[in-house]
Order: sequence, then C-alpha cells, then structure tokens
Amino acid sequence: MIDFDFFSPTYFAFGRGCENRVGELAARYGSRRILIHYGQGSVVKSGLLDRVRQSLVSYEISFVELGGAVPNPRASLVYEGIKLGRQADVDLILGIGGGSAVDSAKAIALGIPYEGDFWDFYSGKAVPMRSLPVGSIVTLAATGTEGSNSSVITNDYLGNLKNGTNTDLIRPVFSILNPELTYTVPEYHTACGATDILSHIIERYFTNTPEVELTDRMSEAIFTRIMEAAKEALADPYSYEARADLLWGGTLAHNDILGAGREQDWSSHRMEHALSAEFDVAHGAGLAVIIPNYLTYTLEHDPARFARFAVKMFGVDPVGRSERETGREGIKKLREFLDEIRMPKTLADLGIRSDDIPQLLKSVVPNNGDLLGRFQPLTKEDVVKIFELSL
Amino acid sequence: MIDFDFFSPTYFAFGRGCENRVGELAARYGSRRILIHYGQGSVVKSGLLDRVRQSLVSYEISFVELGGAVPNPRASLVYEGIKLGRQADVDLILGIGGGSAVDSAKAIALGIPYEGDFWDFYSGKAVPMRSLPVGSIVTLAATGTEGSNSSVITNDYLGNLKNGTNTDLIRPVFSILNPELTYTVPEYHTACGATDILSHIIERYFTNTPEVELTDRMSEAIFTRIMEAAKEALADPYSYEARADLLWGGTLAHNDILGAGREQDWSSHRMEHALSAEFDVAHGAGLAVIIPNYLTYTLEHDPARFARFAVKMFGVDPVGRSERETGREGIKKLREFLDEIRMPKTLADLGIRSDDIPQLLKSVVPNNGDLLGRFQPLTKEDVVKIFELSL
Repeated sequence: MIDFDFFSPTYFAFGRGCENRVGELAARYGSRRILIHYGQGSVVKSGLLDRVRQSLVSYEISFVELGGAVPNPRASLVYEGIKLGRQADVDLILGIGGGSAVDSAKAIALGIPYEGDFWDFYSGKAVPMRSLPVGSIVTLAATGTEGSNSSVITNDYLGNLKNGTNTDLIRPVFSILNPELTYTVPEYHTACGATDILSHIIERYFTNTPEVELTDRMSEAIFTRIMEAAKEALADPYSYEARADLLWGGTLAHNDILGAGREQDWSSHRMEHALSAEFDVAHGAGLAVIIPNYLTYTLEHDPARFARFAVKMFGVDPVGRSERETGREGIKKLREFLDEIRMPKTLADLGIRSDDIPQLLKSVVPNNGDLLGRFQPLTKEDVVKIFELSL
Repeated sequence: MIDFDFFSPTYFAFGRGCENRVGELAARYGSRRILIHYGQGSVVKSGLLDRVRQSLVSYEISFVELGGAVPNPRASLVYEGIKLGRQADVDLILGIGGGSAVDSAKAIALGIPYEGDFWDFYSGKAVPMRSLPVGSIVTLAATGTEGSNSSVITNDYLGNLKNGTNTDLIRPVFSILNPELTYTVPEYHTACGATDILSHIIERYFTNTPEVELTDRMSEAIFTRIMEAAKEALADPYSYEARADLLWGGTLAHNDILGAGREQDWSSHRMEHALSAEFDVAHGAGLAVIIPNYLTYTLEHDPARFARFAVKMFGVDPVGRSERETGREGIKKLREFLDEIRMPKTLADLGIRSDDIPQLLKSVVPNNGDLLGRFQPLTKEDVVKIFELSL
C-alpha cells in the first residue's frame, strides 16, 4: 500500500424522490442564487426540472438556467455558462443529467472565479485554486462524477481535443441520486454506463502496488455486483435494486475509495478519450472496445494479477491452468460479458478504420511523462498496437 | 435498500510519517489555536506528541494540552477540557490516541460552544446544533472514531452510565492515520480492536432490509480481510500491510459506507456498553463475549442471513446442511476465530457473575422505543437471556 490522502466530502442523498430535497441541500450550503445546467430534453420532459425549480423556490433560492449539454460536453457551452453565471452572480452550479451536464457544471464552477481561460485547467497550463461549489442530480449510472474530483471536456475550438482536470475543489458539495430517475435510460446507455463503471474499477485494479488486499477485495465486491446489476437492469429496467446498485456502485467506483493506496493506470480511458473526441463515440462503448484489447496486450506484464482478476471477478477455475492461461480466460469472460450486454467489440463497430489510427494517436494525451499509464507504461508504438488489436 | 444520506467529509491522510502533516492540515481548516487532547503516557513516550507540537509550531499554530484520557473515557475529563478550551479560546480540538481520546475530543468540541451541560447530547435531552471542528491522530485500529459521527462517554458523575451521541458535526475534519504508530499496540489490545472493527460490520450486516447485495459484498470483503490482518498483526506486530489494513479497514467499517441503505441493529454494542460501564471491561473484549451469544439467540429470526454470514465470512460449506445448521456453523467459526486471537469467551472471564446481571440490565439503554436493536428487537427478558448465555 502506498501512502494516500482520501477525501470524499460530498453529501449524498440517495433514494426515491430525493430530488425534491435540492432546495434543502442547497440552502444548507448557504446558496441564494443558482445556475442550473442540464442536458437535453429528458430532464424537462420527465418533469424533473420542474420539481427542482419548485424545491428551490420553496427555499427562496433563485436560479438561472442553461440547457443543452451533450455527451462529450463541449467547451463552447462552458464558456456560455461562465458568462451567464457571472452576469447572474450565482453562488452554486447545479448540474442535472448524465455525467456530461455535471462535468460541464464543474468546468463552469472553475471558470467563473478565474480570470483566465477555464481551459488552462484542462490543458495543464494552470492549477485550479478556487471554484464555486457544485451540486449534482444524476440521472445516469456511469461516470461517477457525482462523487469524483474530475471533469472531462471536449474542446470544440481546438479540433475536439478531449481532456480532463482533477481537483478536490470540484467534488460536488451535494449529490442527489434517485435510482427511479434512471428507469428510462435506454438499453444501450445503461450498458455503456455499466461498462464505464467497470472500467473505473479496472483502471485502479491493475496496479504495480503490492499489499493491496483490502482494496482488491472491495473492488471485487463492487465489480461483480455491477456486472449482475447491469444484466438485471437490462432484463427489467424498472428493477429498483438493480438501478440502485448501479447508481451507488457507480459512485463508489469513482470517488476513489477503491483507489486509496494504489498506483493507478488510466491508459484505457485516455485511449478512449481519443475515440470519443475524434468520432463522438459514447464513452462506455469506446471503453468496451479498448479495455479487453488493452488487457490482452498487457497480460505478460503481470500474469498473477490477471489470474486473480479472472478467478475473483469471473470465477475462472485456476486448477490445471497457468496464471497466463487463467488470466486470458478472465479477459475472455469480460469480453463475453460485454457481448452479453451488447457492447461493441471492434473499432469497426464504431465506424473507425485502420486509416484513422494516426488521427486517434494524435489525440491520446500521455499521463506519465511521455508515456501512457503506470501499470505497463505504454509508448506510442504500444498504443498503435492496441488500436490495431481493436480493429 | 432503504433511502439514505451518506456523508463522510473527513480528510484522511494515511501512511508513514503523516503525523508530521498535522500543522498543514490544521492550517487548511484555518485553525490558529488548538486544544490537544491525548491519553496516557505512550503518546508522550513514543515522541508522537513532540512531533505534533513541532508540526503545529512550524505552521504558527499555538496550542494547549490536556492528557489523561482513559479507555471508556470519563465525563469529568470532558468538563475539564471544555473549561480549558474556553479559557484558551481554541478553534479546533485535536484528539490523539486510541478511540477514547478522540471520543473525548468530540465531546469537548460539542461542549465548548454549548451553554448547557454537554451530557445533554449524550442523555438525549438536547440535539447538538454546533461544534468546534475536531481533528484526530489515531494510534489504535478499533473504534473507527476517526471517520465516524459518534462519540461514547462514561459519566462518572452518574454511576458510570455509558452513553453515546451521533451527529455529523463531530465527524473529524481531518484524521491522520499512520499504521506504524500502531506497531507497539500490545497483543490483547490489537485483538480487542479487531473485534470492535468486526462488530461494527456485524451490527450493520444483520439487517431486515432486503436487496442489500452491494453493501453485503463490501461488508464481506472488509470483514474477511480484517480477520486475516488481525492474525497477521498478532504473528508479526511490525507487518505494515496487516497494520494498514486493520487501520483503514477499521475506518471503513464505521464511517457508515457499509451501513448505507440498511436498517442497523446496535444491540450488541449497547449490551457491551453496560459491561464496560459497570466493570470497566475493554470494549472489544466485552463484544467478544456478547456477540456470539447474541447471534446464537437471534439465529431463528432469519436463518438465511446467518447461512450467508457463515458461507461468505467463513467459507462454511452449505451442502447437506439446513440454513439453520449452516448459520450455527458460522457462529461457531466466529467463536473459534475469537478464541484464536485470545479474546475472552464468557462473562466469568471478565470477572462478571450471574448475580451481576440485574446491575448490567439497568445500564442497557434501549434504542428502539423500549426495545433494543432492530434486527430482532429485544425485550429486557431477551437481554437477560443473552447475558445468561454469556455466563
């Protein structure tokens, strides 16, 4: 175990109808004037936005609104939000919707008190020192942004560069999680969300840090339940238990409780960010293509860890198999699970061809000096090979 | 799963030497003048207190000190701390030591801004509305007070009544956890601490709430690792991994991440509080006597849950056994584990006799109307029977 700091200060309100508590929670943080940022029509059509307005009004909290966040949220809308928020002199940004609206809300919250360009925090040019508080109401079990310190934005002014920032300043002060709000998430996005959740566990599970038995077991507990809950939610979209476990499990998969004391990787995420930036692929769908191939490519780096993954996550029988063979069987089982929830298998399934690899490569942002990831740090050549395996 | 709020805002700094960061962390919360509250000599003798002073001085934070916290911490010392803290006009209470010093620190933090008697919050006469911030440096893996909303105090002015209060106001703003500080914890207290940690999981695990698969698995992950780590730490007190997993696992066992969405019980704790209040028994030792008998007594209430406990926590083979038999085997395995770590088995081992039961009974404080616990709510007669089983 390596030394760590762990800080997850978000107040989580979880359960049926808890969106009606948004006024109470915002008031608790002293908020008087809010920028509500949401995505596309469903937040309006479902009546959720109306319930939020009503709750805020009953606490005498005023608000301005900005809709239009799209998956892989755009910098252009962030700039609009910063302008609107400054004009209205808001004191809290409330993101409502899937991960995108909340990630945008975080960017707006960082941008309002900053004199420069908010993108400085995403390009690495500046380190965030201040933020308005962020609240969230999440309608999709996926990104874990409701408890995380991260925000990922696609810069449509810079050739769709997709990049993220991480700072405790943008961990939401409160997050409202009602599993019933996710009943109507379509099959494909339910599966994409589950894949994203599993990927957040995988990026922490494949580590070079020794002596991580406690967090290994916690990761295995949540990973196995997420796989089951995904299948249950696809079979019965109105299963409260399945939707609740996806939503809360998704939060725990990414508030870093599973990463405490571990060196983390994040190379699959960065390869996928290239896919979704350049081809507007759904994040989870891109991960479903990349991760099994990433794992296949890095298997030799630590067969024992892959064998554990296979045994604990998928119940692979290690008897009579080498660690390598057991590990390979685990990757196969992961692929079978992704097939079962109808996630894409190849870049071709996403409309991406061999000729596109150079374009993808330009979008992959290293996170370990010139290299990508920490489990088996990848060179550009390695990344090309993983993309080729994914064709 | 029932609706829940989850809030664990503590900033945890975990690892080697992190006590030297106390100045940095206190400064982050704007502290200028601290009351340091600690226990007995070991904090002084080990040099820990000196390192803390040095770190605070380097951040120009002044302090006053109050030592003398004992296991089952006393109200009399809390009153002294409140007086001292008011005189010195402190802005943060720092508890250093095992659970007792931190629980006292929490009581002092509640008492300083309150005009009445701090005991009002422990007797249920008043609900806490304000608290000074609390920080902690924990030298024993046991109570989880470093991340919890609870504080338990023994009132030596009221015939040693032992009672607790729960409020998010006393969750520490920061907690410093260095596993190396626990290397010198003696065998007996290491085992008592592990028993306390396991009990915090058990009090949440035995629930009537259906559809709790996610938190069940997380509980099983942490419980099984704590049992292993306890044995490892007893065999090798200087095992960093074992000490680290006990310390962090102990925090997670009681910051309520395992209780989210579940009805909880807490009757074993309340029976044990009677033991430690009346006979000054170490909390973990008292729990080791009570819990197996409590479980035996309530087995019939839900044999399926006991069977799961047996299978998941102890690997009991359910084939050819009824749920009841499997469950009974699980309780037997728990007892065997407690024997292995040399925890007492009977009230007699604690010097308590049959004649003492009426005295104990008077000290058991119900938490469910007139009843005790929620899994199988216990009458006074039930409590007597459990004490009798424990003789």
